[in-house]
Amino acid sequence: MERLIQQIDFLIKADKLKNILRRNYVSDGARRENDAEHSWYFALAAMILAEYSNDAIDIQKVIAMAIIHDLVEIYAGDTFIYDEQAKVGQQEREKIASEKIFGLLPEDQKNHFLTLWNEFEEKSTPESKFARSIDRIVALLLNLKSNGKTWKEHQIDYSQIYAINSTIADGSSTLWSYIKEQLDENKGEGVFYNS
Amino acid sequence: MERLIQQIDFLIKADKLKNILRRNYVSDGARRENDAEHSWYFALAAMILAEYSNDAIDIQKVIAMAIIHDLVEIYAGDTFIYDEQAKVGQQEREKIASEKIFGLLPEDQKNHFLTLWNEFEEKSTPESKFARSIDRIVALLLNLKSNGKTWKEHQIDYSQIYAINSTIADGSSTLWSYIKEQLDENKGEGVFYNS
Repeated sequence: MERLIQQIDFLIKADKLKNILRRNYVSDGARRENDAEHSWYFALAAMILAEYSNDAIDIQKVIAMAIIHDLVEIYAGDTFIYDEQAKVGQQEREKIASEKIFGLLPEDQKNHFLTLWNEFEEKSTPESKFARSIDRIVALLLNLKSNGKTWKEHQIDYSQIYAINSTIADGSSTLWSYIKEQLDENKGEGVFYNS
Repeated sequence: MERLIQQIDFLIKADKLKNILRRNYVSDGARRENDAEHSWYFALAAMILAEYSNDAIDIQKVIAMAIIHDLVEIYAGDTFIYDEQAKVGQQEREKIASEKIFGLLPEDQKNHFLTLWNEFEEKSTPESKFARSIDRIVALLLNLKSNGKTWKEHQIDYSQIYAINSTIADGSSTLWSYIKEQLDENKGEGVFYNS
């Protein structure tokens, strides 16, 4: 019974992910997306787009990464990917947070999820590379759909977007070609800061 | 390329799940939960609580069910489980909606997800029974955590909650024992309508 109580306490704490806001908006631009919704959207997109991974992957592992990848933000907060100052110390903050959040679980599950989260962070396996690509592409889709609202608000120009997101090609060259074309088509349309 | 465009269009439509509100609140009672957050929470809880399934299950299938189970509500809306009037015609509405939403995908994926969604609906396999139990238990956890805010708002009493949720035992007798005890402990504490 103690084990189940620990797991339920973890789930109650995990509910807080619904209160962590990201910088991007949902597709209609009406409000910012939260981490829980994003995690779901990332998992769904991974399922739908699995066939475009550069390498053979265990898609179930990618889906599990999607579901747990942002839980550290309950303690470490969301870090805007284009904010170079905020990114200083991010890895260290999130590492500490990972011990804290997964530490709520029974030992075997703690180890399992810490290992999975570290694999996602290290971006060295085919699964973590593809997961990273999907994590980026869902944000781009929503930012494009909401006419670059976030980008203009935070003064992010095309070259910054290109630089940060070109790593999508590490997990999927097909998805990077597709989204790069979408970005290029939107140049001069008032979607990016300064263009 | 046509295939990828179809998949992206599906994902853009799927984003609307973030705007479908459920009756229950997030754990702090500050606002209602939406379907996208719920789908994530359901998937996470399935991962964490898998060991309590009555039968041997393919947990990956349960997770996939969690991710896609509410997409029909983009077209059919959310139906409150305690509202017997609203439930009239629900199956038919959701069936039509399932053809519409999964019909946006390429044929092979459409068939795959329709089959998965139908399995979840029919509650006859070990995976769908366990998925149903998790779907119910996450709602109970949040309703208990927010002191029955939804139940009092909609005048739902202990006996209704007991009747609807006792089916949790079909997927997991351990989880039903646990949550039944939680419900019983809250009797007379002003958590349920009329008690």
